[in-house]
Amino acid sequence: MENSKLKVFIPFFNLIWSDDLLTQKEHLIIKDFIQVQNWLTINEKEFLASQIAISNPPSRIVLTTWKSEIDKAIAQNPRVQSIFDIVLELSNNDILIKGLATDFIQLENDLGILGEEVVSNFKKNATTFTSTHHSAPTFEIAKLTQILDGKQSAIIQKVKAIISRPEFAYETSTDTAIYREKVYEWCKILADENLGNMAYPKKYGGGENIADYFAIMETLSYHDLSLVIKFGVQFGLWGMSIHSLGTEKHYQKYLKDIGTLKLPGCFAMSETNHGSNVKGLETTATYNHKDKTFLIHTPHEKAQKEYIGNAAVHGQMATVFAKLIIDEVDYGVNAFVVPLRDENNVILKGITIKDCGLKMGLNGVDNGIIRFDNVIIPKDNMLDRFASINDQGKFESPIPSDNRRFFTMLGTLVGGRIGIPRSALAAAKSGLTIAIKYSDKRKQFGPEGGEEVSILNYRMHQRRLFPLLAKTYAIHFALQYVTTRFIERTELEMPEIEALAAGMKAYATWNTTATLQECREACGGKGYLSENRIGALKNDTEIYTTFEGDNTVLMQLVAKNRLAEFRKTYGKMDAMGIISYVYENTKTVIAEKNPIVTRKTDEAHLLDSAFHLSAFEYREKTILASAAKRLKKLIIGGLEPYDAFNVVQHQMIDVAQAYLDRIVLEQFVKALESFEDPQSKVIVAKLSQLYALSQIEKNKGWYLEDGYLEPVKTKAIRKMVNQLCWELRPEAVSLVNAFAIPDSCLAAPIVM
Amino acid sequence: MENSKLKVFIPFFNLIWSDDLLTQKEHLIIKDFIQVQNWLTINEKEFLASQIAISNPPSRIVLTTWKSEIDKAIAQNPRVQSIFDIVLELSNNDILIKGLATDFIQLENDLGILGEEVVSNFKKNATTFTSTHHSAPTFEIAKLTQILDGKQSAIIQKVKAIISRPEFAYETSTDTAIYREKVYEWCKILADENLGNMAYPKKYGGGENIADYFAIMETLSYHDLSLVIKFGVQFGLWGMSIHSLGTEKHYQKYLKDIGTLKLPGCFAMSETNHGSNVKGLETTATYNHKDKTFLIHTPHEKAQKEYIGNAAVHGQMATVFAKLIIDEVDYGVNAFVVPLRDENNVILKGITIKDCGLKMGLNGVDNGIIRFDNVIIPKDNMLDRFASINDQGKFESPIPSDNRRFFTMLGTLVGGRIGIPRSALAAAKSGLTIAIKYSDKRKQFGPEGGEEVSILNYRMHQRRLFPLLAKTYAIHFALQYVTTRFIERTELEMPEIEALAAGMKAYATWNTTATLQECREACGGKGYLSENRIGALKNDTEIYTTFEGDNTVLMQLVAKNRLAEFRKTYGKMDAMGIISYVYENTKTVIAEKNPIVTRKTDEAHLLDSAFHLSAFEYREKTILASAAKRLKKLIIGGLEPYDAFNVVQHQMIDVAQAYLDRIVLEQFVKALESFEDPQSKVIVAKLSQLYALSQIEKNKGWYLEDGYLEPVKTKAIRKMVNQLCWELRPEAVSLVNAFAIPDSCLAAPIVM
Repeated sequence: MENSKLKVFIPFFNLIWSDDLLTQKEHLIIKDFIQVQNWLTINEKEFLASQIAISNPPSRIVLTTWKSEIDKAIAQNPRVQSIFDIVLELSNNDILIKGLATDFIQLENDLGILGEEVVSNFKKNATTFTSTHHSAPTFEIAKLTQILDGKQSAIIQKVKAIISRPEFAYETSTDTAIYREKVYEWCKILADENLGNMAYPKKYGGGENIADYFAIMETLSYHDLSLVIKFGVQFGLWGMSIHSLGTEKHYQKYLKDIGTLKLPGCFAMSETNHGSNVKGLETTATYNHKDKTFLIHTPHEKAQKEYIGNAAVHGQMATVFAKLIIDEVDYGVNAFVVPLRDENNVILKGITIKDCGLKMGLNGVDNGIIRFDNVIIPKDNMLDRFASINDQGKFESPIPSDNRRFFTMLGTLVGGRIGIPRSALAAAKSGLTIAIKYSDKRKQFGPEGGEEVSILNYRMHQRRLFPLLAKTYAIHFALQYVTTRFIERTELEMPEIEALAAGMKAYATWNTTATLQECREACGGKGYLSENRIGALKNDTEIYTTFEGDNTVLMQLVAKNRLAEFRKTYGKMDAMGIISYVYENTKTVIAEKNPIVTRKTDEAHLLDSAFHLSAFEYREKTILASAAKRLKKLIIGGLEPYDAFNVVQHQMIDVAQAYLDRIVLEQFVKALESFEDPQSKVIVAKLSQLYALSQIEKNKGWYLEDGYLEPVKTKAIRKMVNQLCWELRPEAVSLVNAFAIPDSCLAAPIVM
Repeated sequence: MENSKLKVFIPFFNLIWSDDLLTQKEHLIIKDFIQVQNWLTINEKEFLASQIAISNPPSRIVLTTWKSEIDKAIAQNPRVQSIFDIVLELSNNDILIKGLATDFIQLENDLGILGEEVVSNFKKNATTFTSTHHSAPTFEIAKLTQILDGKQSAIIQKVKAIISRPEFAYETSTDTAIYREKVYEWCKILADENLGNMAYPKKYGGGENIADYFAIMETLSYHDLSLVIKFGVQFGLWGMSIHSLGTEKHYQKYLKDIGTLKLPGCFAMSETNHGSNVKGLETTATYNHKDKTFLIHTPHEKAQKEYIGNAAVHGQMATVFAKLIIDEVDYGVNAFVVPLRDENNVILKGITIKDCGLKMGLNGVDNGIIRFDNVIIPKDNMLDRFASINDQGKFESPIPSDNRRFFTMLGTLVGGRIGIPRSALAAAKSGLTIAIKYSDKRKQFGPEGGEEVSILNYRMHQRRLFPLLAKTYAIHFALQYVTTRFIERTELEMPEIEALAAGMKAYATWNTTATLQECREACGGKGYLSENRIGALKNDTEIYTTFEGDNTVLMQLVAKNRLAEFRKTYGKMDAMGIISYVYENTKTVIAEKNPIVTRKTDEAHLLDSAFHLSAFEYREKTILASAAKRLKKLIIGGLEPYDAFNVVQHQMIDVAQAYLDRIVLEQFVKALESFEDPQSKVIVAKLSQLYALSQIEKNKGWYLEDGYLEPVKTKAIRKMVNQLCWELRPEAVSLVNAFAIPDSCLAAPIVM
């Protein structure tokens, strides 16, 4: 194509043969265009048409020549803005072609080519700002680690040192028997290191340090999660049930041996037919005053104790929850110590134990099904802190209501609902560390002609991982708070703390499930290989949303507690009461709910924690008041309360969710205030902003429905979430490194 | 308490000692209330105070007596509405007590007791409407199954019969080697039944029936998913790569043996460093014209072929994708048949194969890593449908652009992106069948004093499962549509069909991941036991969101395709163009976007599929136009297109999502129109309404931001979603039974 006038068609020919987005239709458009150009001779037209005939593709060499002509044109005038600019260059600024500007631009439009993009692609600029973003932290990792570990730093260091020893190398056998024994051996090492009995009184060999106990649970969770659960069953559930429900005589008899793992035991509450509704347990403990014994019995198959950890292989005793029967009167569910195996691990008479078999995860824990066939235990085996039988064989209890007594007993066991979310938190941290470090290293795609780009530079990838990183940081501080509240609890605060722990258990474990899901997908095929550990983390924590209380059931408990609190404060429930409730303590709300504020979108405002807290509080209070109002209306309207609660069940979950969101943000903001390292404070503050704004974004439907936010503001929030993600990109690897998870625990080859 | 005046305090005492929601504060309120009652003597006041002293709890018998007094009072007047009504009854309508109405009601308020609820709880009405809801289908299951199976009914029956045979009993060994052999044996049985070669030409022993082939893939997915993937690798990826990329000589040589599984093979595309960006593959195929051979070579470790199914144990050959090099010129990625093992399964010289090791799931598939060390293959082994080397040793191709040629080759393999989502669909159906049937049988909690209630009667449980059931039905019809489009495709439609298949692959597999997660949680601990199969379904399908194209990457492809379509139609991109684009074909939109319609909430309107379709289309078009506008603005503003696409990446995913939502709804509505069974049509129509409304609810933030819906309408939609769930409850078990999954495949003991 020596004729420079014909050359002007090169960009179009190139597009036709290279761009797979152009179809027959566009083909025809160019053909028609050529036909109507009066300045072309018939021969020229024929020649041009032949260049785009489907039956006659250009050779690879011709294509390369065209491309180099275009490149030359762009080199001559790097400021070309449209295809027509290139056309002009190719024609050497031919005056005739210049006069065809309108026609050519029309052609570009007809082809639907976004001119600037096509031209930019021709330019092949390999150094885009997306390509050049990279890790460049602005804070000292060790300082942030110190802040996260806080007062538990020493015990955390100790645990990390232990689980990094060679004997803690992961078990890779798929043989469950081998895996279970390995986990048991690990537990023994931990017991020998005095970690198991950390929460028990010093009198019984313990460390009397509950805060350290929870830190141990969390830190162990960087390692194998079967180990953590086996550890928790033995020292937490089994040991603490003795400590919380028993009395001195039980402590003396059992606690030391439990703490050293000389006496492996179980916590036998759940039954096949009663997992969540434990009030309905059917196992019986029938008192025989003549012999001063109890007869422990499983009335039918579906009343067997199920999923009991430590039962299938190692447990020698169990705290068994059973209905106490005296003289044919049912005194509700109480707790009893029942031997299962002798010291040689032989199952005792009357006890039948089945293995639960393979599970999705946690296969290092020997869960079993226990059946009792008229097993006789001595009277002293009743854990009698809350109820007992006197010398006359009569029932005695300071809590006359059977229900209330049972729930009081359960309340003393709330520690398990702190250990589990803290373990879940650690698993989320492991997953994020693996996924973020891998995504930083992994490169895929890139600008035309440029190097491939770290996938962590892609906005969508940031969007998938960073809000979860922010939420995980938020939950870290919230669980610190719950732990402190639990340790410093008074009797009066118990209902609140129980609800808080139940709620945070659900909140943290759901976050872990969601986080690990995203981490697996973010690591692609590598995330699917067992060696990279996300699979184990996912499968082991999968049941966290179910055990220690099904999350959905727990959220309803939380909501009922919030409702009860609400009613106590605003008994009258008239319209003004509700309004004043919503606005009380949400001081800025009234001021904010005017068009200037609902539409306020400046950066300082959007990033202001006062705005975030107001928004969270407002949502919490409004949802709670509205659920209360709706319930009242339904019941007054004639519904049974049971039906009414069912009708609003979905709203109840929102009540709990909004309450927990507020607690979590509040504690995050509070924790930040006490940060002494200014560099890490700046970055973690960005995480708190990201947490707050991505939660608001998630709930934008609600905020828009309510009118608290207007569209212009929710859109600005979405952009701000993107911006925060982008700004956090260079810090992300350091933010996960601050979790300081031992390499031997992470173990994933993709991040080594 | 014989004094009937004192009796009036019984309800309050009962609450104090039984209700664990009452705390010290309320305790004091009652105490104070008693103190100020002037009609009581000092002795009476003291007596009453003693009844609530914390140091002196009532005996269990006293508590029971109080309760029976209350029961008696309610029995006398079952219409009591408040605690004060009970108080009056207990006083035998004492005139003095009557006069104290204001005081007592104030007390109730101060205690924050929602009177009606407390009273209802006292009433212990055991027959609530929540309790009595149950399965009661209104349609014939077999008729719906027939509609779902359609023309593929015969082959589906055949496959079901085969996988129900005793030799298809699930493998329970955790030993990978045993599992892999079992899966291989199963594949051989299927090959013997002529299922593997179903899509191949009759000339080479095949069934020449692509529709049946996809139905086979889907139906096999009710059984072990390792089997499906192994089957798909052999007959789909390996066989179809020969069929799609090779020519007659390859068909003759290989197709028959592939179809009978005499020749097990692999599809070796992915490399460690190039999983998604396969254009960047680094394996080389260097042509030697003297010997008429290629040298296949892996230049470095990260260029190894990775995750290759059938490679670790059984594969004897592989279709290898490698850059073709002739005379030091790179001609882009092409495909070559490379032998890996001899007939005795001995690995050939120059080939190194490593086992990928344990994975989260699909451990019955032998994935491996393949390295080539200067492996020589004859010239004929180049799959030469799209490119070849002529007798002069020169490159020839009808597609001059290397990129375009490679993407054309990939396009011919799009069938894999139909097989995978259809397999995912079957897995979702299995999970829903298990979870819904179990939830129907499983009872937990219930009204005070009543029987426990099927957990499927709980609104939240319905909310968790039924929208996913609806979406799964929706996807069923959408995948039928995609399959038909694929089978009946013309060249011109290929870009659209490729995008559609890529998008539906992402849409269906994400739905499966979400569905199985919810199913696991809905089944609680039972869902965690391997015997109940949700674990295997979850873990096996986990990688579906990654393989055959990472979902997020695919969604961006879809969005780019939509954008290209948009530009072709509306090249000018001026404001009026965009507006007319949005409104075109969304005929009712202009009419609807006025306050009467944005607020329209009557049931008929909310359930009207015309409303649903308009809402979906409007969202699709608006998001697409807005993304196009934003991109243009960014690029005109000076951003490199690569950066601009990164900035809007999040929006691009929305573009694809909205497009797929619309396709899925459209096909669901279309499929319903042709339902010939009126009973099942009524019920499946409810599913389509639930699908549509729950998607709108999920996106209500967007609709409110846009103004297409107003708060009053989004709230009405939420209620309607709840209502539809409730109405579908009696049909749910039958709706999953209509999937007609063989019992031997479901296998879960919890539903047997």
